Amino acid sequence: MNYCSECGAPVLSRIPPGDTRPRHVCVNCGAVHYQNPKLVVGAIAAWEEKILLCRRAIEPRRDKWTLPAGFMENRETTAEAAIRETQEEACAKIALGEMFTLIDLPHIDQVHIFYLARLLDADFHPGDESLETALFAEADVPWSQIAFRTTTLTLRRYFDDRRHGQWRFHNIVSAAP
Amino acid sequence: MNYCSECGAPVLSRIPPGDTRPRHVCVNCGAVHYQNPKLVVGAIAAWEEKILLCRRAIEPRRDKWTLPAGFMENRETTAEAAIRETQEEACAKIALGEMFTLIDLPHIDQVHIFYLARLLDADFHPGDESLETALFAEADVPWSQIAFRTTTLTLRRYFDDRRHGQWRFHNIVSAAP
Repeated sequence: MNYCSECGAPVLSRIPPGDTRPRHVCVNCGAVHYQNPKLVVGAIAAWEEKILLCRRAIEPRRDKWTLPAGFMENRETTAEAAIRETQEEACAKIALGEMFTLIDLPHIDQVHIFYLARLLDADFHPGDESLETALFAEADVPWSQIAFRTTTLTLRRYFDDRRHGQWRFHNIVSAAP
Repeated sequence: MNYCSECGAPVLSRIPPGDTRPRHVCVNCGAVHYQNPKLVVGAIAAWEEKILLCRRAIEPRRDKWTLPAGFMENRETTAEAAIRETQEEACAKIALGEMFTLIDLPHIDQVHIFYLARLLDADFHPGDESLETALFAEADVPWSQIAFRTTTLTLRRYFDDRRHGQWRFHNIVSAAP
């Protein structure tokens, strides 16, 4: 950040009065511009014994597989974000279940959330951000071709919990690789 | 947002190619400035049968009582944010338990998270943002003097779960009042 988004004057890195951290502070109007972690929300959409993955059409990690997920928008809930992202990336309609994982990624200032879900029908196909969408049984998951660590962490716990016959909520920290 | 934080030129509200929503787009460098929900994280810090509340020294809701909580910072986890905010607002040291509530507030573009916690000792006192810090038994909670609805929602479920002898994770939507 170089300029104040309110008045267009330069910003400097300063610790505001009463604060303990450097912030971007406008030299003209004094506005303090905070930067905070972003939420990424997605779904584990199940159809019978299989789960829905998308092969990415965009960077980062183009060609790799991921659970449908993306940045949460203003004016929506985490549940609405999970449903919207699944619709956008896989053109799939889902019924949402419980929140399943919440994963802290402090090295990239993100928090990822995945909901349990089930597909309402098997009518899905790639959205603009996907090259391919497909259902995978546990034995067929392309583990070495997964785009993001939070997809792997979530799928491992998904199959573990399913084996144990009990869904738990998992709060996980994913440190820098 | 009026100006590009990268180059200082004006921004206009436009739907970028491949997007579906209006964003702040720079007329000069083309940077797209996304705005996303913010995370607020806090703790329900217990000492024997009582829980710790802070009376706010700052607006909004000065003089009202709240669970210690605040905006999550970059480079920290949700758990670290809960511990830090409890330290800052009540000068209290806590051991953190499970994540207890996650509350969507789509009308103000926030998600609030509260962790179960216990005070490591009864040595606490108001930080800069608090007028008073005190322990309350359930019967003594000043319900009509609580600053934020997410504190009330969290405390109700806390006392309910304690009565039932089982802590559950609660994912709640708090619509506009």
